[in-house]
Amino acid sequence: MDRRGILFVISGPSGVGKGTIREELLKNVNNLNLSVSATTRSPREGEVDGRDYYYVSKDKFQQMADEQQFLEYAHVYNNMYGTPRPYVVEKLEQGQDVLLEIDIQGAMQIKKTMPDAVYIFIKPPSIDELVSRLCGRGKDTQESIERRLVACQSELLQVVYYDYVVVNDDLNDAVRDVQSIIQAERCRIKYYNLKG
Amino acid sequence: MDRRGILFVISGPSGVGKGTIREELLKNVNNLNLSVSATTRSPREGEVDGRDYYYVSKDKFQQMADEQQFLEYAHVYNNMYGTPRPYVVEKLEQGQDVLLEIDIQGAMQIKKTMPDAVYIFIKPPSIDELVSRLCGRGKDTQESIERRLVACQSELLQVVYYDYVVVNDDLNDAVRDVQSIIQAERCRIKYYNLKG
Repeated sequence: MDRRGILFVISGPSGVGKGTIREELLKNVNNLNLSVSATTRSPREGEVDGRDYYYVSKDKFQQMADEQQFLEYAHVYNNMYGTPRPYVVEKLEQGQDVLLEIDIQGAMQIKKTMPDAVYIFIKPPSIDELVSRLCGRGKDTQESIERRLVACQSELLQVVYYDYVVVNDDLNDAVRDVQSIIQAERCRIKYYNLKG
Repeated sequence: MDRRGILFVISGPSGVGKGTIREELLKNVNNLNLSVSATTRSPREGEVDGRDYYYVSKDKFQQMADEQQFLEYAHVYNNMYGTPRPYVVEKLEQGQDVLLEIDIQGAMQIKKTMPDAVYIFIKPPSIDELVSRLCGRGKDTQESIERRLVACQSELLQVVYYDYVVVNDDLNDAVRDVQSIIQAERCRIKYYNLKG
């Protein structure tokens, strides 16, 4: 590939299904490299170190932050999350595309240093639907759900800072939309090599 | 649909296969209305009035031009071609998307009055491939092919004024790319209704 790599950032409120969309994209889209975040939180059931997150201690996390190794990092619900910079930058320089799935707070931080990335907002069909999904998946406490909903109301307003918005009503439709966005962006004239 | 319509302009040199791509798009993509051009040239075998072109006399064409009924019109190879304005404008105002397949000269004219349209350049894999296609389809004379190739060399430089470039090497891949572009553009934040 002659062009530089493209960073695709998929983001949206908790419970909107962005993790599921990420998994489908990794199965279906060629030449897409997942950026794995570091976190100080404990693995949930079924999560694998190095695939879902890099699970690190608070001391290790702080050391990485001090060494400017994060594209962004943030406190979320008493834990630290961060996007290691070296992997993303290296892939983009090699002309490889990178997929980053991240919460809205993180995406807005990334945008400050990576304005050329493609920002895709995954939106719930409605707030009611989001509540029912968060309750349904059974891995969040009542308190955690309420806290998320308060955050969600203001987070949804951030959609204006994104390039695209995809409503996750039907999962297949949402995945198809994000795949189309990735494919379309790869055809954009700014990546076209005039000598080609 | 709450948003305004989007005008998709597919364009490229003669013989690149944009007519075939147009037909595939009309079969596969929902809510896409074809803009039919007017021309003074005679129908080719298999072409249908009102589907491929509106075939009009030179007098009628000139009258339409005098009445500002064209988004663009031009002389090409001793004939007149034009894009009737009323249909396109009406569909866009109704929130309907419109597909326009047009030569490069026409696309560049349209861009002056419709800067918000989405411009997609269909590119041959190589000049050699284009020659072989023009010869292969057997409906062009040697002189016509040579004239087209001279035009093509300079036309290919116009690609920089487009939003996207799609290489028509494999037809299925090219159609898939243009479909992705249409789907992606429909997800763009500028068409998103914040109240929705």
